[in-house]
This record gives sequence, structure tokens and C-alpha cells, in this order.
Amino acid sequence: MTEEKQLVVGHKNPDTDAVVAAISYSYLQNQTGMNTEAVAQGEPNKETKFVFNKFDYKYPRITTAVNGDAKKVMLVDHNEKQQSFDDIDNVEVTHVVDHHRIANFETALPLYYRAEPIGCTSTILWEMYNEQDVEIPAKIAGLMASAIISDTLLLKSPTSTSKDEDALKSLAKTAGIDYEAYGMEMLKAGTDLDDKSTQELIDMDAKSFEMNGNNVRIAQVNTVDVDHTLEREAEFVSDIKKENQENNYNLFVLLITNIMTSDTTGVIIGDDNAVSTFEKALNTKVSDNKASLPGVVSRKKQIVPPLNGEF
Amino acid sequence: MTEEKQLVVGHKNPDTDAVVAAISYSYLQNQTGMNTEAVAQGEPNKETKFVFNKFDYKYPRITTAVNGDAKKVMLVDHNEKQQSFDDIDNVEVTHVVDHHRIANFETALPLYYRAEPIGCTSTILWEMYNEQDVEIPAKIAGLMASAIISDTLLLKSPTSTSKDEDALKSLAKTAGIDYEAYGMEMLKAGTDLDDKSTQELIDMDAKSFEMNGNNVRIAQVNTVDVDHTLEREAEFVSDIKKENQENNYNLFVLLITNIMTSDTTGVIIGDDNAVSTFEKALNTKVSDNKASLPGVVSRKKQIVPPLNGEF
Repeated sequence: MTEEKQLVVGHKNPDTDAVVAAISYSYLQNQTGMNTEAVAQGEPNKETKFVFNKFDYKYPRITTAVNGDAKKVMLVDHNEKQQSFDDIDNVEVTHVVDHHRIANFETALPLYYRAEPIGCTSTILWEMYNEQDVEIPAKIAGLMASAIISDTLLLKSPTSTSKDEDALKSLAKTAGIDYEAYGMEMLKAGTDLDDKSTQELIDMDAKSFEMNGNNVRIAQVNTVDVDHTLEREAEFVSDIKKENQENNYNLFVLLITNIMTSDTTGVIIGDDNAVSTFEKALNTKVSDNKASLPGVVSRKKQIVPPLNGEF
Repeated sequence: MTEEKQLVVGHKNPDTDAVVAAISYSYLQNQTGMNTEAVAQGEPNKETKFVFNKFDYKYPRITTAVNGDAKKVMLVDHNEKQQSFDDIDNVEVTHVVDHHRIANFETALPLYYRAEPIGCTSTILWEMYNEQDVEIPAKIAGLMASAIISDTLLLKSPTSTSKDEDALKSLAKTAGIDYEAYGMEMLKAGTDLDDKSTQELIDMDAKSFEMNGNNVRIAQVNTVDVDHTLEREAEFVSDIKKENQENNYNLFVLLITNIMTSDTTGVIIGDDNAVSTFEKALNTKVSDNKASLPGVVSRKKQIVPPLNGEF
């Protein structure tokens, strides 16, 4: 008896775990007699591209709809309808493996559903391979280790659990990688800012605020290597000064946030009063245009309120 | 660190699996460091009473609401809100183990969810004990085996799978029971009609129909032992004849259905024309007031339409 083909898919706007979980669950299912195809709901992001290159693995077919290709589907790393296939209502969901809350999800029939409140879907899949005693090929183990590194920021995210750590260590061994060195390299690749100009970086995620008559501009970039980003410090300073002049900003704050350590280095340029207001508000010292902001990751919660209060 | 108490509960109007799954999941959780209490949302039915007597196990505390007893709960054998605690919206659902469809269920936070499309929740719990390498006490194994027998009608229900069979055999061994002999005894106890009069039995689940000017009454009782039920045949016949006279029924059909074999024996009493209409409609012979109706279990689908068509 040949099983009818089912599609296995992660969420829309896919990250590494969404694509990798589809691949590893599809492989596991096929090893146990099912007929499945992993697909992805979008192009790989920079980090995911790096991962698929590293382990020399083919990125799955891209589609955001079933389009009559199958009558049954399996969902990984999501369950909510709006994150799933556009035509999800036309098919039967037979399996879900996920680590998110359950919402906007309903079935007509009983199904296989496996969720755990842990850091990564690939950790749950690692457990399932173990439970079913199926060997994980080295390349797929490398993808799965990458997904765990991605979702848990190398086990440093508050969502990371001891199970994620066990899984990552075991998968890294199977894949033959040093997960700490590789993890840093992978996260760096994902936050690679090198192909963007400093002008693009100070525009990319920037917001303007009016604070007691002062025009304040606050931009933020994420990185795993602040020193590397600041190799272009002179360019940042020159671009920011031009911005301030052209837009009459009294203060420009560029937050360079290390997502691994949850610390920020600020590049602070503006009129003397505004800069000293920033120093008081954030209880820091601006020296050579730079300020250390340990523990600061959120513009909305940790920068805007104290600054607005101090002006 | 003492874990905060959580309640573990099965669905409203509980059957054997709903109560037993709460007990066995609570035990498993407590073995792995949690602090849980199993409760039941109602009194035991006849079968469940038999099971708890047999294994000398205390029936859990009965409550249909959390009533501030816990902030977090675990659901077994159900997920739909209307089957759960009355005040389920006031607490956090942290775990679900179930074998039904998912509907009318939503959480704000990630959770542990384990569902499989198989015959019984207790089978999934048996797998989880194995995965977590926790020994099942003999009494709890007896309860779990009973739940599987109940939900799968001794592995004969169309929802029963090979996993249910594996679980039942393994649990029966742990409990030290012959599951086939015990299972028949248990199902008999659940469908025990002995404490009801024949008049009660022909009233219990009876419906009246008008069919082309004929008054037709169709009653149904479920059993695992038709012969035992028919030991009171003379009483049934006499009660039915009285019913026909008092209510001007042209035809009375009593369906005695064997839930184990999905066959029915009919007791058919009425005026000559109605009885021969019944014979034609059901393609059977009424002899000595009785007719054999193999494969018939549904009054709605298998009796009413052909009979109505023939009159």
C-alpha cells in the first residue's frame, strides 16, 4: 500500500526552525512508512541561507498554498491558521509538532499533536527520533542543531530549557560540529550588516520623537559583534551629523545591540544640552560620541521613557 | 522548591477513561516532581464503579469547577471548553493528553499538548510512562487496562489501533489479569440490566413513530449478553403486549443490541400486517416474536428508514 502524499510545512515568513523542522519531520515520517514532502512558505533569510550552505542541503520547494497537491498536511513550528497555507481550510491537518501556544486552530477529526513549552520545535523532533529509535543523518542533525541555536540564541534566550541544551549537544555530536564556535559564526552570518551602507543602517529601523521641543531620532541595529560594526564608526558619525543638520535633529541615538549579551553600545550625537540630558536619563557617560548601555535591548521600554522624562 | 498544586481532570459526565487518565497522568507527573491532584467531574457510572472496586482504588474527589483550588490545570481525554471545568477560563491549562479532535480550545501561552488519533487516552499515557521510564503500579495498570477495554470495546471498536492492543496486553500483564476474561466481565457489568424491570427496559430508550397511519414504537437496549437478557423473554412479551393495547401501537420493536458483535436480536410484536411489513423491510423472518438482525446497531439509520419505506 502506497501512502498518499502529505505536505509538511512551517510558518509563513520562515526562519531556520520553520524550514528545518519541516525537513526533519518529513524525513522521520518517511522513515516510518509515510509519503511526505517538506515545503517552505518563503525564501531563506540570511541565517537560513548560511545554514543550508554549511550543510550542503537543498532548500525545499517554496509555496504558500497546497494548490491541490495533497489532501492532508502536517504543520511544524506553528498552528495558527493565519501563519499557515493560504488554503489550509481545504485540507485535513493530520499532524502538528510545535512549541507555541494553541490559537485559531480547530480540526474536524482526531489528529497527532505534539507540543512542548520549550525553546525550539527541532528539540521536540530530536526527542521523537529518539523515542522512535530512528537514526538522524549527519546533515539533518546539522540543520536541527542550527535551528536550536537560532531559536535559543545559542541557549541564551529566556525560552531555552535544559532539554534544548541536551538536544543541541547531541545533534552537534552527530553533525560533527563544535556548536559554540559554529553557533557564533551562524548567528553572525544572520546579523551580517556588511552588505549595508552606514546610511542604510541608521535608516533601517529608526524612529523620530518630539520631546519637550527637541527633535530626537533613535535608530537600532542588531549584531553579535559590536566591535566589527564599529569598525565603520567614522562613517556612522559623519552620516549622523549630516542627518542631524538636514533634519534639525537635536539628538541622534544609534543603538548597536548585541543580541547575544543583551547589551547595547550607543552612538550619541547632538547639541550639548541634548547629549547631557541623555547622559542623565540613561545614567551613563558619552565619551568620544559613544556610551555603554549594559542590559539595554528595548528602545520602547528602556530608552524612550527615561529620555522623555528627562527632557 | 515545592511545585504549586495543579488539578488533573477528564471530561464532564465521565466514563472510565476520563477518570482513569486523570489518575494515571497525575501519578506520572508526581513521580517526575510535579504536585498534582486528580479529580473527576462526576459520579462513577456502573462500569467505572466495577473497575474501581475490582482494583480496590479510591475514586477521586468530585468537582466540576476549580473553585480557586489551583491556578493551573491539566486536561485529559478532552480539550473542548464545554466539556471542561465550569471556570476553565480563570486558570491556565499547562498540559493536555487526549485522543479527540481539537476544537473550542485556545491558550495564551505555550503548553504541553499530546494527542494521537487512537482508541484511548490511557494508551497514550502508557507510551509516556515508557518514554519517561516510570514504572506503572499494578493497580494503576489495572485501571488503565480497564480504560482501554472500555474505549475500544475490548479492541473491537473501529477506533482501536495496534498501539491500543500493545498497551492493553502490556498493562494486563503488569496488573496480573487475563484481559479477555476480565474485559468481558467488565463490559457486562457496565451494561448490566439486571437491576431494571422489563417495563423499565422497554421504556428507557424508546421512541414513537407514525408510519403511513401506523403507530410504531421502537425501543433499544445495549448488552454484551443477549441470551442473558432474553432469559426474561416472557416478561418482555407480556409487557410489550400490554403497551400495544394501552397505546394503540400497531407495532412494537424491541432491539436488543450486542455491543461486542454489533448484532441485534429484535422482539417484534404487533398486528399481522405490521409484523409482515417489518419482515419485508428488514429482510428477516419473525419467529416466536423474535427476529435476527445481524449488523444492525442503529435505530436511526438501519431500522426507521427501511420500515418507513415499506409501510
